[in-house]
Amino acid sequence: MMHRLVKQSAAPLRRLFSSHGDIKRGAFATLNDADVAHFQKICSGVLTATDEVAPFNSDWLNKYHGHSKLVLRPKTTQEVSDILKYCNDRRLAVVPQGGNTGLVGGSVPVHDEIVLSTGNMNQIESFDDVSGIVVCQAGCILETLDAHVGKFGYMMPLDLGAKGTCQIGGNASTNAGGLRLLRYGSLHGSILGIEAVLADGTIVDCLSTMRKDNTGYDLKQLFIGSEGTLGVITRLSVLTPPRSSAVNVALVGCESFDAVKKTYVQARRHLGEILSAVEFMDRGSLDMVLSQQPDLADPLESNCPFYVLIETAGSNASHDMEKLEHYLADVMDTGSVVDGTVAQDAAQAKRLFGIREDITLALSSRGYVYKYDVSIPIDEYYQIVQDTRTRMEKHGAVVVGYGHLGDSNMHLNISTLEYDDKVMADLEPFVFEWTAARRGSISAEHGIGTHKPSFLHLSKSDSAIRMMQQMKHVFDPNGILNPYKVLPSSSSSAAA
Amino acid sequence: MMHRLVKQSAAPLRRLFSSHGDIKRGAFATLNDADVAHFQKICSGVLTATDEVAPFNSDWLNKYHGHSKLVLRPKTTQEVSDILKYCNDRRLAVVPQGGNTGLVGGSVPVHDEIVLSTGNMNQIESFDDVSGIVVCQAGCILETLDAHVGKFGYMMPLDLGAKGTCQIGGNASTNAGGLRLLRYGSLHGSILGIEAVLADGTIVDCLSTMRKDNTGYDLKQLFIGSEGTLGVITRLSVLTPPRSSAVNVALVGCESFDAVKKTYVQARRHLGEILSAVEFMDRGSLDMVLSQQPDLADPLESNCPFYVLIETAGSNASHDMEKLEHYLADVMDTGSVVDGTVAQDAAQAKRLFGIREDITLALSSRGYVYKYDVSIPIDEYYQIVQDTRTRMEKHGAVVVGYGHLGDSNMHLNISTLEYDDKVMADLEPFVFEWTAARRGSISAEHGIGTHKPSFLHLSKSDSAIRMMQQMKHVFDPNGILNPYKVLPSSSSSAAA
Repeated sequence: MMHRLVKQSAAPLRRLFSSHGDIKRGAFATLNDADVAHFQKICSGVLTATDEVAPFNSDWLNKYHGHSKLVLRPKTTQEVSDILKYCNDRRLAVVPQGGNTGLVGGSVPVHDEIVLSTGNMNQIESFDDVSGIVVCQAGCILETLDAHVGKFGYMMPLDLGAKGTCQIGGNASTNAGGLRLLRYGSLHGSILGIEAVLADGTIVDCLSTMRKDNTGYDLKQLFIGSEGTLGVITRLSVLTPPRSSAVNVALVGCESFDAVKKTYVQARRHLGEILSAVEFMDRGSLDMVLSQQPDLADPLESNCPFYVLIETAGSNASHDMEKLEHYLADVMDTGSVVDGTVAQDAAQAKRLFGIREDITLALSSRGYVYKYDVSIPIDEYYQIVQDTRTRMEKHGAVVVGYGHLGDSNMHLNISTLEYDDKVMADLEPFVFEWTAARRGSISAEHGIGTHKPSFLHLSKSDSAIRMMQQMKHVFDPNGILNPYKVLPSSSSSAAA
Repeated sequence: MMHRLVKQSAAPLRRLFSSHGDIKRGAFATLNDADVAHFQKICSGVLTATDEVAPFNSDWLNKYHGHSKLVLRPKTTQEVSDILKYCNDRRLAVVPQGGNTGLVGGSVPVHDEIVLSTGNMNQIESFDDVSGIVVCQAGCILETLDAHVGKFGYMMPLDLGAKGTCQIGGNASTNAGGLRLLRYGSLHGSILGIEAVLADGTIVDCLSTMRKDNTGYDLKQLFIGSEGTLGVITRLSVLTPPRSSAVNVALVGCESFDAVKKTYVQARRHLGEILSAVEFMDRGSLDMVLSQQPDLADPLESNCPFYVLIETAGSNASHDMEKLEHYLADVMDTGSVVDGTVAQDAAQAKRLFGIREDITLALSSRGYVYKYDVSIPIDEYYQIVQDTRTRMEKHGAVVVGYGHLGDSNMHLNISTLEYDDKVMADLEPFVFEWTAARRGSISAEHGIGTHKPSFLHLSKSDSAIRMMQQMKHVFDPNGILNPYKVLPSSSSSAAA
């Protein structure tokens, strides 16, 4: 149902310099020929040719650029362990990289870090069709896993636009959210076990396949969302939910954000256990897609300022449709919704969801895009779009908002024809401070990467950041794992 | 629906000595009058009278006994912080205690630790009826919270026998599981934010109320399931699911464990999104309840070796009943189930669930009970009961098994008229090693406490235990927080 991310070519209008900013290189060692010779002995995949290394040095939006000279593509946990042990002894910095579909520079080298790519670690090791638990290596592509468990009537508990490229290890490391979180919760709940390798090469086996395991500290949680700064995830076990036999999609239009809120609350009430996604987009987001896809018709007759996309997934098609019809009758009767359409088949459903999914591509095709991914209390969910729009008026920027309404997760996007420092200066720290003032999160699902370490204090207290730095120091005392990322600079680039 | 745990009186037949075992006191300071005088200045609730302190010195099963002279009952986070700072400076050991309903001695003093009871921290601070997020102090009783959010159409994501006594802070600290885990997942997913106080008094504010927050390491996870050894949880925010308007309960009987497995798989297939609990009990468990409750009739006409209790919870009573009837027809037709009953009203549903809930009480009323709480791969789920029964034959012990089938969580219980070291020697480490050999968990939901630190290595690798010890050392360098618990002794009692 979801679209594959297409790697963007570097158009001349876009910002071509590294937006990693002015990050000073840490006191790490520099790769030499002897190192490369050693890696060729201990690792099954070693890339050194400039053209082969190049794709690993930038992200898919072509926004972040590094200068790595070496990509290592191990196949086994033991290889990862040997690599990290050597790097730690030699003080060589390493950036773990999965599908490289992130948006905050977390998987891209900043300077000359060695890229440790998990792409060759793509074995699905087992699937238990009674419990629905899959065990696999970190480099398995999300879509491949979803297809595999699908054969047994199950589905992966997460789904996101990048599913055709992103890897489950990267999903775990970044605590990826996406479309199914509303129903199936975060990876902190779905991931049952993790095997990871620490900076010094220690293999930590917490690869439980039990749904319940209260034996000591839940160490696997440390690796979920820490963006590869505490260890490299090598294998995982994931609890997958049964695939629903009946899926329905409806798109409805609302005249006000207050009506959007009511539409959401009524959806939870009417659709209860079958509600599987509640996505939001404003008219500007839809216009962005329509402008880039001339063949696409406006999905509703009315031109509404706000749209809500609702997906249900259940085990009984007629029960589900009855619930959906009651719901739609109710939101139309009460005036929350002024127009709407229900997909009559899977192709129509795919088309409706496709609009929501295509917003990202439409935005990046238009020119430069400043992307923000924030959580905001539902009452002020759309206010950030309006306030940013007012602020951007003088720049002629197009400001649109869309996102996972059911999770209070807003994707605020500011589109300009080309990158402009003045626009950036008016956006940051404005967006982050606006969010922090409402106790929202300055990164709902995209993470911190190199983009936001200096803003981390807006969402986390000093004592919390100090705890993170202490953990980093204990488990990666030489700071070789993904330096310059997540934590403010005082600790992240601290090579011994 | 669930029953309140009743504190057991110390019957002469039971083991009256402390089963904390021979744990050597750490090199902590000893409480003096000046300390007590200081606590009276900084804490709103100070108990020193022997009879007032006594209930805090033992657990509800009267199995673990400590020798604390002082109970502190603060009302605010600041008080907790002041207390811990003082204790840390003075090297006074502290045991945090919630509702004290645990089964592994985790909340009971071992020697003379100060009891830090969260019972007076019982304020519900806010509830957002759009998002379903409740914010409260750690000492709120689970049942009270459930009733509070119930007024708005929501329910707590966990439910367990001790709900009338246990506190949400203790639930979080022990990562309590219970009946709703199958549907709503673990607390690692449901808890959105935590405020905790570290051993040195530092208040760590990670009290997010956002469903998505990927800003740095997810520190709150450290406090979930670490049994108060890394910090004291003071406030929480919890995501609560909508309360289902339709709840159905069925009890079915099976002739073999293979049939039980099929009954479970078919339940997932037919009942999908409305399935809310799949509980298991063997005939011995039912007999135990019947023998203790002479007025209770056998719930089914057939005498079956195995019973499965199925609960559905949904938003449409007629849809749900239709699904349940189809399901029951299918499992009867295919022979997985030989007898069954569906509750016709809430009172009947309560009675059926009551049998499952009463097993614990029936067992402890009979005499002494050796309790094990393990996760086992579903194929061998019942084998542990059979193997243990064989092993116990010579002791004349009654061996029963019940538990959360849907989570592969077996409660293995061995009942004798009085405690016997020989029985114990035949059970431990047998049960733990049996479980470890199948990569199960030696503690599915009850935790480690003082009961299992020496067996932790059976479920966790050396490198994992070393990571836990490193974390303990960083965040509680003097080891004052809940010493002797969770981690093997080399680190847990290491006072500076």
